[in-house]
Amino acid sequence: MATYTPPVKDQQFILHDVLKVSESGIPGYDELDRDFTQAVLDEAGKIAANVLQPLNKVGDEQGCVLENGVVRTPEGFKDAWQQMSEGGWMGLDASPDYGGQGMPHLLNTATGELFSTANMAFQMYVGLSHGAASALAAHGSEEQKATYLPKIYSGEWSGTMNLTEPHCGTDLGLIRTKAEPQDDGSYRITGQKIWISGGENDLSENIIHLVLAKIPGGPEGIKGISLFVVPKFLPKEDGTLGDRNAVSCGGLEEKMGIHGNATCVMNYDGATGWLVGDENKGMRAMFTMMNEARLSVALQGYTQGEVAYQNALGFARDRLQGRDVTGAQAPDKPADPIIVHPDVRRGLMDQKSLVEGGRALVYWGAELIDRSHRANDDKAEAMISLLIPVMKGFLTDKGFETCVLAQQTLGGSGFTREWGIEQFVRDARIAMIYEGTNGIQSLDLVGRKLPMNGGQTMMAFFEMVKTFIKENEGNEELKSGFLDPLKAASKDLQAAAMYFMQEGMKNPLNALAGSYDFMHLFGHVAVGFMWARMGKAATEALDAGASDAEFYRTKIATGRYYMARQLPATGMHLARIQSGAEPVMALDAANF
Amino acid sequence: MATYTPPVKDQQFILHDVLKVSESGIPGYDELDRDFTQAVLDEAGKIAANVLQPLNKVGDEQGCVLENGVVRTPEGFKDAWQQMSEGGWMGLDASPDYGGQGMPHLLNTATGELFSTANMAFQMYVGLSHGAASALAAHGSEEQKATYLPKIYSGEWSGTMNLTEPHCGTDLGLIRTKAEPQDDGSYRITGQKIWISGGENDLSENIIHLVLAKIPGGPEGIKGISLFVVPKFLPKEDGTLGDRNAVSCGGLEEKMGIHGNATCVMNYDGATGWLVGDENKGMRAMFTMMNEARLSVALQGYTQGEVAYQNALGFARDRLQGRDVTGAQAPDKPADPIIVHPDVRRGLMDQKSLVEGGRALVYWGAELIDRSHRANDDKAEAMISLLIPVMKGFLTDKGFETCVLAQQTLGGSGFTREWGIEQFVRDARIAMIYEGTNGIQSLDLVGRKLPMNGGQTMMAFFEMVKTFIKENEGNEELKSGFLDPLKAASKDLQAAAMYFMQEGMKNPLNALAGSYDFMHLFGHVAVGFMWARMGKAATEALDAGASDAEFYRTKIATGRYYMARQLPATGMHLARIQSGAEPVMALDAANF
Repeated sequence: MATYTPPVKDQQFILHDVLKVSESGIPGYDELDRDFTQAVLDEAGKIAANVLQPLNKVGDEQGCVLENGVVRTPEGFKDAWQQMSEGGWMGLDASPDYGGQGMPHLLNTATGELFSTANMAFQMYVGLSHGAASALAAHGSEEQKATYLPKIYSGEWSGTMNLTEPHCGTDLGLIRTKAEPQDDGSYRITGQKIWISGGENDLSENIIHLVLAKIPGGPEGIKGISLFVVPKFLPKEDGTLGDRNAVSCGGLEEKMGIHGNATCVMNYDGATGWLVGDENKGMRAMFTMMNEARLSVALQGYTQGEVAYQNALGFARDRLQGRDVTGAQAPDKPADPIIVHPDVRRGLMDQKSLVEGGRALVYWGAELIDRSHRANDDKAEAMISLLIPVMKGFLTDKGFETCVLAQQTLGGSGFTREWGIEQFVRDARIAMIYEGTNGIQSLDLVGRKLPMNGGQTMMAFFEMVKTFIKENEGNEELKSGFLDPLKAASKDLQAAAMYFMQEGMKNPLNALAGSYDFMHLFGHVAVGFMWARMGKAATEALDAGASDAEFYRTKIATGRYYMARQLPATGMHLARIQSGAEPVMALDAANF
Repeated sequence: MATYTPPVKDQQFILHDVLKVSESGIPGYDELDRDFTQAVLDEAGKIAANVLQPLNKVGDEQGCVLENGVVRTPEGFKDAWQQMSEGGWMGLDASPDYGGQGMPHLLNTATGELFSTANMAFQMYVGLSHGAASALAAHGSEEQKATYLPKIYSGEWSGTMNLTEPHCGTDLGLIRTKAEPQDDGSYRITGQKIWISGGENDLSENIIHLVLAKIPGGPEGIKGISLFVVPKFLPKEDGTLGDRNAVSCGGLEEKMGIHGNATCVMNYDGATGWLVGDENKGMRAMFTMMNEARLSVALQGYTQGEVAYQNALGFARDRLQGRDVTGAQAPDKPADPIIVHPDVRRGLMDQKSLVEGGRALVYWGAELIDRSHRANDDKAEAMISLLIPVMKGFLTDKGFETCVLAQQTLGGSGFTREWGIEQFVRDARIAMIYEGTNGIQSLDLVGRKLPMNGGQTMMAFFEMVKTFIKENEGNEELKSGFLDPLKAASKDLQAAAMYFMQEGMKNPLNALAGSYDFMHLFGHVAVGFMWARMGKAATEALDAGASDAEFYRTKIATGRYYMARQLPATGMHLARIQSGAEPVMALDAANF
């Protein structure tokens, strides 16, 4: 059975040595000193390791059951929900005006990482409730906020997002769910939504659905989509539950993983709903929440990689097979632990460097979101908007790859249920698909984000990397191991961006055919940049005589591995991009 | 639910246009004319598509059940086994002296592909029975052959291979199962074996276990391992079943995929067995079967990719989302089929070019095996020994990757059970692990095969590629699209081999740390070489005025895609290799 140790030390390293959060000047960050974040992360880590992680396998094995319209979540999930609610974790970064704790989004990201690593299927109920609340907080009326937010942040009620319909997921302009205005100002919602995570559950006494629908007579396509709040039970004036609304779960999806999370078909049969925000502005409401939502999925990628890696490492230290070619390491035993073998190490170092690099990138992303919201920094907003598709697409691909690598470290044991690694592979797989498939992320990146602000944000990224390299070039420890490879990789990224700008004008297919490779190329440069920043922070800590020198030396060695072994992928992606659309588009659809 | 169409046209293309089998001069190949192979493949294709494929999902859902010591395979498996037996498919390439059909191994590989694609879990029962029979055919006494082979080739009996024990899989020198000599010439076998595919099943009336065990007092380690035949029921003189032997199934493994195949714990409690071949030469007996066994796993990789690709393609043609950026393709419909989008095509072309390239490589491998056995060609034997770890490791990694890509083409539908794609991902995963993990394949490649014959076989491979390029340089159609990229990729492979030869002497860790990348680099060059051969064959067919010009033009376009988009990976692998052992080995085991 899999185990999990919260990586609080590494989290603290990123928060304080790399991002230096308490000196960042972002409003609210002054509270985030080392002792405070240590205490919060320790507390979250206890719930993650002691409450959520033991339920991960239970959730996978039991799954969810639909009986008489009610979904029964796996044994123990309701208790865990209760503990999460009582601990105040549901609204850690929400406004105190509505019962939240008012902490930065970065801290919610760090604690959310712990919960998500321990039990991704469970944390999805929490995360989607949080997402629904964020949509209401951003776009709801004062009355809506007062009605729903305190109940969601207290865990009494949960929330869901309803976008997909059977005939459309990516292309939301095609949705058919309709919302007919009623005399009392409410709407009658009719239609079917699918793949609704937590659409029905027994964790909370009420479920607040946020639903995209079309008001008849409105504009065609996505310009005619509005957002509605549709509670399972209609709240009475005093906040208690009133009538059951005409929304019900029509079935559960059987799927590859995240069995502990109920994936529901939701039927709206003239359900009562209320408009959130303006008519026909539903897509815009979705867009304002997108960075946060996609960042939380980017995080899911490396979190499953983290727990898979921890268990692969434990196996590699215990399992005795073969001998170190340079001489027996455990001569008193029948064989050496497999961690002595170079190819086993290659797998472990790939895992370790991807997970730690992914964590740093996501935390930087959360900091940018805080900077944009709390300091009203437009440049931070633009930067995170550029980086979000990279983080979501690259880190979920790499997170899955990390789980597969970890499974491989265990050999045959990795394929058995008993060891629990194969669950991480199955669970991690969904993160590449939902919240916009990774292909869609790459289109968002190349089609919208790259040309955004006339390309200035992309240029600002290059400038940031260049400045970092320049500022640290005198540091011999960093130069060959970090700065030189980063410079080369960044050059590849610039060449790719240049290719898109030149070719994309002439033939948009040339840009679109290379979008996925561009996303990966960018991902490597972004993670490489974070590794360079981590390398710098580690050398500084060593220079300052840090007590835990081994930790910092390990950090530098892990970073050097990433730069030497992962970054060379940028050349391959550039070559693929520069081969253009011709090889990709050569066949008629009929000839495949 | 997934569907499957046997790709007989593509099989015929490789057999006749590329390998030109009936002109090859290999004894027995003269029979393999177009009409004959068409008839055989059509017949096998019918069983695959009509009998085995519909049972694939059944097998996944029902799995196997152990009750009172007997394993019940999924509904329909026994009937299918019967039909396979009656069709003569069990011993297609076995000696007619023992009831086989005497066909080349290549033909068995091509029909085996169809069965394996349709139902990998089922075909494993067939494949392992075939493997056990091959071991007996190669190393058994005349009496053993007469007793067991006809019964296995007729499907009355099945066979298994028993190597792994709980404490050792890769490092077989550690096995503890013992074989004590008895006065009557038999041995008393005692011990536990795990992960025994088909170890117990209800398909056949008897099960013939081939078991590795140690005779007490023999040499330490792998030099003291012998091979034994241990039947479930002891055959009487007249061939009927006698006493039940003291071998039993102690449990079934729960695992990620191939649920239709029973993965058994096998307990030998003083079971009666007989030595196969010489005392203490069990490992050698295993080695002589290794090329065949590993080739059949290499095949599993691309077969799951094939069926996943077929279903992804069907989805991409049907699913309507978004519009072609160059103008609506289905203006009468609410949206265009997603196959119009460049990034969807990128995924499909990756899948298609990997599957077709993998098929060609495996068929060439089967031809080399035939050439070595039927024409006693030592050079062919050496070449296939060099290529086997590449085929097994690279094609199973890429086969899994292809399934994941296909799953991604379906978006959310790919994650649901309903569409059946996620099963291919789960089933394909095991091929990277069993029959020697892919890490072990890479060690075999770099540690044993590369230096084999003083490096001459590796040189012969380079020579073959060089000669092919030289001979075809005048062909303008081939030059830029195929020969130039092949030359560049082959140069990277040569540089890597050179690095190993120079550095490996000084520090073996430098070679071992790059073994996995070398396997992938080699795999790309080998598949690239096959694509160049296919490109050549297709241009020749077009020049000769072939009636199905579209098929050949598609083949050329698919090959050009592989060369342009897949081969650039060689540079990345070379860079990883040339970074040496330092980044990989930098950490102490305690500091991970």
